[in-house]
Amino acid sequence: MTDDWGLLEPLGASAAATSDDAVLAALVEVERALIRAWGHVLGEDLDSVAGALDVAALDRDGLLAGARSGGVPVIALVEQLRAQAEAVTTGAGDRVHTGATSQDILDSALVLVARAGLAETRGHLVSTGEALVVLAEGERHTVSIARTLGQHAAPSTVGVTIAGWLDGVSSALEAIDDTVFPVQLGGAVGTGEAFDRRAGRVDATPELRAAVADDLGLADPGRSWHSERSPILHIADPAAIVVAALGRIGRDVAFLARTEIGEVVLAATGGSSAMPHKRNPVDAVLLTANGLRAPGLLATVHAASVSQDARPAGEWHAEWQALRGLLRLALESADAADAVVAGLTIDPEAVARNHSLSRELDRDPAATLAASARIVRAASERFRSLTTETTS
Amino acid sequence: MTDDWGLLEPLGASAAATSDDAVLAALVEVERALIRAWGHVLGEDLDSVAGALDVAALDRDGLLAGARSGGVPVIALVEQLRAQAEAVTTGAGDRVHTGATSQDILDSALVLVARAGLAETRGHLVSTGEALVVLAEGERHTVSIARTLGQHAAPSTVGVTIAGWLDGVSSALEAIDDTVFPVQLGGAVGTGEAFDRRAGRVDATPELRAAVADDLGLADPGRSWHSERSPILHIADPAAIVVAALGRIGRDVAFLARTEIGEVVLAATGGSSAMPHKRNPVDAVLLTANGLRAPGLLATVHAASVSQDARPAGEWHAEWQALRGLLRLALESADAADAVVAGLTIDPEAVARNHSLSRELDRDPAATLAASARIVRAASERFRSLTTETTS
Amino acid sequence: MTDDWGLLEPLGASAAATSDDAVLAALVEVERALIRAWGHVLGEDLDSVAGALDVAALDRDGLLAGARSGGVPVIALVEQLRAQAEAVTTGAGDRVHTGATSQDILDSALVLVARAGLAETRGHLVSTGEALVVLAEGERHTVSIARTLGQHAAPSTVGVTIAGWLDGVSSALEAIDDTVFPVQLGGAVGTGEAFDRRAGRVDATPELRAAVADDLGLADPGRSWHSERSPILHIADPAAIVVAALGRIGRDVAFLARTEIGEVVLAATGGSSAMPHKRNPVDAVLLTANGLRAPGLLATVHAASVSQDARPAGEWHAEWQALRGLLRLALESADAADAVVAGLTIDPEAVARNHSLSRELDRDPAATLAASARIVRAASERFRSLTTETTS
Amino acid sequence: MTDDWGLLEPLGASAAATSDDAVLAALVEVERALIRAWGHVLGEDLDSVAGALDVAALDRDGLLAGARSGGVPVIALVEQLRAQAEAVTTGAGDRVHTGATSQDILDSALVLVARAGLAETRGHLVSTGEALVVLAEGERHTVSIARTLGQHAAPSTVGVTIAGWLDGVSSALEAIDDTVFPVQLGGAVGTGEAFDRRAGRVDATPELRAAVADDLGLADPGRSWHSERSPILHIADPAAIVVAALGRIGRDVAFLARTEIGEVVLAATGGSSAMPHKRNPVDAVLLTANGLRAPGLLATVHAASVSQDARPAGEWHAEWQALRGLLRLALESADAADAVVAGLTIDPEAVARNHSLSRELDRDPAATLAASARIVRAASERFRSLTTETTS
Repeated sequence: MTDDWGLLEPLGASAAATSDDAVLAALVEVERALIRAWGHVLGEDLDSVAGALDVAALDRDGLLAGARSGGVPVIALVEQLRAQAEAVTTGAGDRVHTGATSQDILDSALVLVARAGLAETRGHLVSTGEALVVLAEGERHTVSIARTLGQHAAPSTVGVTIAGWLDGVSSALEAIDDTVFPVQLGGAVGTGEAFDRRAGRVDATPELRAAVADDLGLADPGRSWHSERSPILHIADPAAIVVAALGRIGRDVAFLARTEIGEVVLAATGGSSAMPHKRNPVDAVLLTANGLRAPGLLATVHAASVSQDARPAGEWHAEWQALRGLLRLALESADAADAVVAGLTIDPEAVARNHSLSRELDRDPAATLAASARIVRAASERFRSLTTETTS
Repeated sequence: MTDDWGLLEPLGASAAATSDDAVLAALVEVERALIRAWGHVLGEDLDSVAGALDVAALDRDGLLAGARSGGVPVIALVEQLRAQAEAVTTGAGDRVHTGATSQDILDSALVLVARAGLAETRGHLVSTGEALVVLAEGERHTVSIARTLGQHAAPSTVGVTIAGWLDGVSSALEAIDDTVFPVQLGGAVGTGEAFDRRAGRVDATPELRAAVADDLGLADPGRSWHSERSPILHIADPAAIVVAALGRIGRDVAFLARTEIGEVVLAATGGSSAMPHKRNPVDAVLLTANGLRAPGLLATVHAASVSQDARPAGEWHAEWQALRGLLRLALESADAADAVVAGLTIDPEAVARNHSLSRELDRDPAATLAASARIVRAASERFRSLTTETTS
Repeated sequence: MTDDWGLLEPLGASAAATSDDAVLAALVEVERALIRAWGHVLGEDLDSVAGALDVAALDRDGLLAGARSGGVPVIALVEQLRAQAEAVTTGAGDRVHTGATSQDILDSALVLVARAGLAETRGHLVSTGEALVVLAEGERHTVSIARTLGQHAAPSTVGVTIAGWLDGVSSALEAIDDTVFPVQLGGAVGTGEAFDRRAGRVDATPELRAAVADDLGLADPGRSWHSERSPILHIADPAAIVVAALGRIGRDVAFLARTEIGEVVLAATGGSSAMPHKRNPVDAVLLTANGLRAPGLLATVHAASVSQDARPAGEWHAEWQALRGLLRLALESADAADAVVAGLTIDPEAVARNHSLSRELDRDPAATLAASARIVRAASERFRSLTTETTS
Repeated sequence: MTDDWGLLEPLGASAAATSDDAVLAALVEVERALIRAWGHVLGEDLDSVAGALDVAALDRDGLLAGARSGGVPVIALVEQLRAQAEAVTTGAGDRVHTGATSQDILDSALVLVARAGLAETRGHLVSTGEALVVLAEGERHTVSIARTLGQHAAPSTVGVTIAGWLDGVSSALEAIDDTVFPVQLGGAVGTGEAFDRRAGRVDATPELRAAVADDLGLADPGRSWHSERSPILHIADPAAIVVAALGRIGRDVAFLARTEIGEVVLAATGGSSAMPHKRNPVDAVLLTANGLRAPGLLATVHAASVSQDARPAGEWHAEWQALRGLLRLALESADAADAVVAGLTIDPEAVARNHSLSRELDRDPAATLAASARIVRAASERFRSLTTETTS
């Protein structure tokens, strides 16, 4: 068994929402929702069938063996769930997974995992942004030297730098808020024919899909998208945007915390197995690392979206781990960014010392300070407009 | 000089909107807009200065030499443009590029190229979609065998397959229509301090940025985004989505046109230097190839978005060609997809013959046909809702 | 905890050599080797200290907590291992990890994992190649139609097609056989200064590194390579080459097993949750999927190799999972390819039927058959030259 | 026409060896070699036919039109070359491209371009390495502070840092020196059947391939590799390794040249359109940018290597620009690295000043200096062993 319990994923503990356990729970949740939706469509009460499904009682070795032989864990899962239902009520096994195909369940489950993961990510982003608003406003008059292409360029303020990070957080929030989480339900070849046939009428599929979507709180896309993967790209892209925005903060913080620069002081730092004196900016380092890891995963999700047939012979299978990986990185980075920002203070003496290296750049700071106030205010307002509930 | 005149880019002729000439024209257009915006802010008429800038008269070798020494073509461009302005009106050279930095100009220019490229892409997508609507509706009763994981799965219709392609086109259209094209204007370090100083007041920058945006028909983002690259990711992602959606059509068409399958007949095919009898589905092949090329470019744009400082030491420079490349692939693929679909007919006998290989799957087609009609209608309506001007 | 127990990795069971358990065991093995190497350098017997280290007794939660705070699991590991050693012999804790840095241990451990993983991969490739030799030789007279750009092109033989797969396997074998697995040992900043200081002489480091390499059976690179990552690229590249070569076999097999084509018959196929009649070419599908997954991971390893400083602030951390992932995909694909080929037979009637669709291409097959015999023989000989022990 | 004349490729002037002109010249060179090889196989003198081919006289618009309709520029090229030959000698047109397929010509031509590009790259690397040897030896006693994870870690020397860059250059050299450049010659479907038929004997193909290889100075791979792309991966990988090794030098140099650090002083720097006082480390920035660009292109080449059939329907077409792009980046980076290193000096006062910030790390430098001398010597010797002709 390929058991990765987190040894090589230092931020993994913050991303339980993307674990195999979370995926398995989501798979069962989708099967339950499908049963209940059938109840709705048929006018029967199938809640007890749905209630018979028990994640904790599943035989995981059996699921893995089934995934090996079938290429997807859902086939073996359905067998087990049918047995669970049948054990409670004779004949109930047939009410499980009725008319559906594996991809309906796994796609919908990964969308559920995405929704939960990005919601938790959003929470961290809001918290991070709030801290950045305070920091930016507090440092909007702290004149600093701005650097471009690695060189001292012109005066700015620490507030402007932090407002730039805040803009990244706001952009990440916007990207999440624009994300649509659609249900997948198409049956064997996307037509829903088996749903209609089971229901005994030719228009049951849209109703069933709407009912599943409603049950799960997902969007009803009005179609199946087994091999039209733009819905997945529209989930993967914002996850990558989150990681990039926070990776940039990681790069900046790791630089500003460098021994020679020292403009940023971090509360939490890590040690070294070789050098006990070291104070490594661990979270900033890991934010940067995640920023380096996301593009390859995004490339995989996009490559996998060049699909074929009613359902493809490899592309879909290639998508799972890359998509889950992106969601994981987004969640990890959001949690770590939150920690970085919460423990970050500015050393005004270091800021001034570095600035003073380029005295020839000095000029009346009035225009810079006015610009700083404007920029910090705009960034704060943008963030607040994204996070404030409006009541009418 | 690295002169790539198209030898290795068979679809390149359709993507002139992304050529170096187009980029250069856009760079000058941005400089012109900045001059006119200064006229607006200062209450002066600078139209004649803007009008003095002449793309055709630029010394391109000088631009390339400047790009080599400065890392960016804008520095040498500004020198030449200033000389052009000065030659017309003494002192006018100073009105060129006033307060701006190279990145303001190049970012805004690439956004202009993106807007033009994606607009042209959109035109092809609309035309492609219209043809697919007709095809899908015409074939909504043509029962076919749907394939999953490469195997015959269950009956469907040719209309459903084509509706799936249409869904991809609609998704690509939606992605383009959701794209925002923002101007970049921040000055040396993003604060706009030099703008304010030149204007003699501390609030000139927002007004200037709004005026440039208005002049160019771009969005005013209310901030500079030199190292907060989500605006670029929000342009690169839809371009990649276009390529993926059309790459999938390419994969499907190339398969359905295979000698053994023959369900699709193509009007335009290519020959072979070795086999004169060959009828290669060239456009479908190139759509597929572009689908394979886009993910790597997208990864580069995302990797480059993990920026640093007020402007970074490499990340921004890494972005240009990858972003332009994605825009090019989108435009090429949209043009080629248009051609593929325009010349595509269905061979109903081949469809029936292939279907008949799986007779055991036969059943009353009523449910499938009803589903087909529903799916084709939904896909057509979705497409039409995206392409019909609504008047109130 | 991010516990991925294999739910989304259908071939994962074949890749235990790349699991977290395997990495942990390798980390401890490297620490043991370092202790023994110190014994060699100092002329002391430290075998009992090395023997006191006990993987099974490690507190894994503690390791994960340490990885979270330190960014790398080695710091907490060393603490635990020192306690283990100290518990057996007072003072022995100091003999653990002496002079080393975390990266020495983790890099060397991942190289050990790579060596073991690629060795197991090689075993599968040899077995796969042997089966392909038999198949190719058996089918070298089976005239078939070769396809290019999806169209019937010209006659060939099934043997030639299989010889092409065999060439891919041979290329993969060559890539593995050319791989060098170097030890990492540089101390805190790559100079080995702490090693020399502990040894009391200025030339201890090369001797210690050679001793560790000898103990582990790794190559002694004559240098530390903390931020010069070509040794890792030279491991990642062959892993990716393996996956690509086998992904191509997957693509071909999945196509040739298509319902309409039927030239290939597979012994082991998977079912469907929606269609019990389906016989999905699961292993071929998963080979293809892995072929789609590897390029993104390879891009990450290469991106991470643009390092900085004596040890970088993020690049190294970004490398671990991508490198491990590539090794995993290689091992999975090699195992699955072995299974595919072992259960693959040719349907000569289908081959002839498809060929007959292009009768106009018929000509005297003598030249084709002669070419086939030559090509099959060359491919077989190439493979045998790579797998036969030569005795003098 | 997609005419990219270098506007967005600041280092492009150094990479003429990878331009479309160079590719076109190589295509014609391969066609010439094939003609001469036929002369060898048939015992005829066809040199005058080969000599009739004239690159300069080709109609490029015709080539582009042919590439558009045929998907590859070779078909139209062959028509034009046949007309050229025929114009000189009646009947000679038939001696052009005899038995070959487009992919034979384009693959072989790109391999020629790769060989020339990497040879030129190697020249720059040797020059860069020689300069680094001198620098490293000159600075082997200059104690500096080594940085890890962005923090001061422990003393080292400037020589050790430079030796690390030299190790990267040596690794890049080794990667190039290990590269095999094979000819491609398989005919329509890889069997060479048309060659044998034209020659009137069943064993002409190997002889013809050997003769073409000999003529072009390429390796004879003993097989065709139309859809077994490991030969291309073995060219793309070293190109990417070159870019990565030099990208790391770019990152380090841009950091060490930062205003606050100042340990490195660069002779050639670029200006700014906004800040005339700026001295941007342009070449280091572009090295870094290329390091960010290569992984995506490498991912594309690897994705394209998952081929299909005797020749694939898209994968091959996807490979060209990505492969050429990697060769270009390697050549550009090698040229720029040469320039960087040639103009790089060390500021010992800045080195000492930065070191002094971590006085607590001070200890007897004897061990560090001894290690430095050893490391610099080893790196120099490794480089020299790769660049010195051995005579026996």
